[in-house]
Amino acid sequence: MNDSSGTVPVELAERAYDITIGTDCLEKIGPIADRMGRLSTAIVITDENVRNPHAHRVAELLAKEDFARVDLMVVDPGEPSKSIEVAAGLWESLLEGEADRGTIVVAVGGGVVGDLAGFVAATYMRGVRFVQVPTSLLAQVDSSVGGKVGINLPGGKNMVGAFLQPAAVLIDTATLLTLPEREYWSGFGEVVKYGVILDGPFFAELESCCDALLERDPNCLERIVAQCCRLKAQVVCEDERETSGRRALLNYGHTIGHAIETLAGYGTLLHGEAVSIGMVAASRLAERLGRIPEEVTRRQRDLLVKLGLPVDLPDFDPDEMIEVMKRDKKAARGQVRFVLPSALGQAELVESIDLEDVRAVLEK
Amino acid sequence: MNDSSGTVPVELAERAYDITIGTDCLEKIGPIADRMGRLSTAIVITDENVRNPHAHRVAELLAKEDFARVDLMVVDPGEPSKSIEVAAGLWESLLEGEADRGTIVVAVGGGVVGDLAGFVAATYMRGVRFVQVPTSLLAQVDSSVGGKVGINLPGGKNMVGAFLQPAAVLIDTATLLTLPEREYWSGFGEVVKYGVILDGPFFAELESCCDALLERDPNCLERIVAQCCRLKAQVVCEDERETSGRRALLNYGHTIGHAIETLAGYGTLLHGEAVSIGMVAASRLAERLGRIPEEVTRRQRDLLVKLGLPVDLPDFDPDEMIEVMKRDKKAARGQVRFVLPSALGQAELVESIDLEDVRAVLEK
Repeated sequence: MNDSSGTVPVELAERAYDITIGTDCLEKIGPIADRMGRLSTAIVITDENVRNPHAHRVAELLAKEDFARVDLMVVDPGEPSKSIEVAAGLWESLLEGEADRGTIVVAVGGGVVGDLAGFVAATYMRGVRFVQVPTSLLAQVDSSVGGKVGINLPGGKNMVGAFLQPAAVLIDTATLLTLPEREYWSGFGEVVKYGVILDGPFFAELESCCDALLERDPNCLERIVAQCCRLKAQVVCEDERETSGRRALLNYGHTIGHAIETLAGYGTLLHGEAVSIGMVAASRLAERLGRIPEEVTRRQRDLLVKLGLPVDLPDFDPDEMIEVMKRDKKAARGQVRFVLPSALGQAELVESIDLEDVRAVLEK
Repeated sequence: MNDSSGTVPVELAERAYDITIGTDCLEKIGPIADRMGRLSTAIVITDENVRNPHAHRVAELLAKEDFARVDLMVVDPGEPSKSIEVAAGLWESLLEGEADRGTIVVAVGGGVVGDLAGFVAATYMRGVRFVQVPTSLLAQVDSSVGGKVGINLPGGKNMVGAFLQPAAVLIDTATLLTLPEREYWSGFGEVVKYGVILDGPFFAELESCCDALLERDPNCLERIVAQCCRLKAQVVCEDERETSGRRALLNYGHTIGHAIETLAGYGTLLHGEAVSIGMVAASRLAERLGRIPEEVTRRQRDLLVKLGLPVDLPDFDPDEMIEVMKRDKKAARGQVRFVLPSALGQAELVESIDLEDVRAVLEK
């Protein structure tokens, strides 16, 4: 076991928690639960893909702790599970399993499981404690950190949700070894994003350790995941509720990315793939507006392609894409906002973009 | 217009807001919205009973302010509207109406509308601003203050919800004049509760102004409603998330009350009626445990009866009632907790009650 990457403290005013990162470290779930004081029952929520061995193992480890009962609840894999219906089913199951305010909900899985289980935990009895054990790269570097949880409406992604800071996050990078290639690669969308918007040297490190990442080298993975968590936690601590504009920087690539996901239908493109395409398009928009030289887009594009990600816009009607962007919950009064890079490692939230410029980029 | 009762500040660490109380004061909704900074759209949520004239008037007043649009959404009256299905319909309607993070949700109605609209506001796009305009006595003295919002599951009341402090509360006691008698009276359940658990002189005042209250005398109503808001706001500020046990005092009468509501089926008994019965039963339990003299129960019973409320237990199986109490979200590890009076104006949260004593009281 190697846990040299250690612990990232998240010092939120309201509640501080630790992100524990290591390789083959799932057994730390016991001590983590133990430190949380008096708990009644534990509910492990997972999907069919992660159930064995990871979720099953977490449930077994928790069963050794002082819980009145430990339940394992399994949902279908994929974005459609982030629905009102699946959330309703989980609320009912919690009630039937006599979950109470001393219950802890533990999400073991990717972003879908974390978002869904987190929303259920945030709202069941007005909130019970929540632990994230993310098992996908995307969830480890992004969705498990920051407290955003939620479900989708038929008309829009993440339209219903809450801010729920987890009581703890446990990241075992060994869970990444069994991920299918496409899902693993898609996580690099968000990884590259942190480099572009916040940390130039980190971007350069990604360029130089590309091969080790593709081979899923444990030391490299721990280092990269920990740095992503540090970068994200820092932003979240500065602006938990996305009010100052600081946290909004994390939406780089997401304005166009979300529109692509919506139009393609959830699940056609993976989230990281849509973000990858969205980043390159946003970077081209920044170029068009004279904010960056062409080289900044080229280096992103090259790195993303090397990491197995798509970078070209699908063949959608630009006007339709713009309509979807206007409905995005980050839009204000129909104004579309973009995060645009000003260099590798630096970005800005830009409020008033001429939609003609957006259309030109979407039309290529 | 008389607004001498004025404003009760609620100084929560996280967010302070004002409760504005008066008679014929609905037009203050304009200035209240105006003070909230840049808003995009306003959604007034109400039910068929309150739509005309109150909700319609609030929507009209808001239309004079600087909103891109003002929508009125109407649900069926009654507890069944606090459902996942109705919440889902409202989420969809908000999305269709292009509600965004600058949207304000205004609940105009009783407790059901406030709880439902508040839950929708707390979760739509992870939370938009929320204003309560309670029009029932119960909502004015209780549910609109304190930030608890939520919906029911088939298996339990308020099992899904959130803590959402409103941006403002506007109470117009003139809206009480048109309430049906039974609904009006039922509000006195919570009014009497504040006297019993927190404020002996207030209890005595209620005994002496009983007739004026039944006649819905405006001055008396303003004074009583304002004092209830003050008492509740004080408790909520001391213990917003119900962690110290202080806020739990507000559940006096609710352990048995909720069980009665569940077994009778939502809607058979009004909430205040169930609380009235629950208070008398809890007081008898306190008597049985030697905590109070018989007189404390008798005075509560007499006052509640004079105010038109039921005080006798319906004919339910005591064991079944106890089973329902164990499932209540305030129960911890199957332990049933009771708030018991120690005098008129003073109460205590008691954790370990022998269920045989509870059974004896339920059997009479």
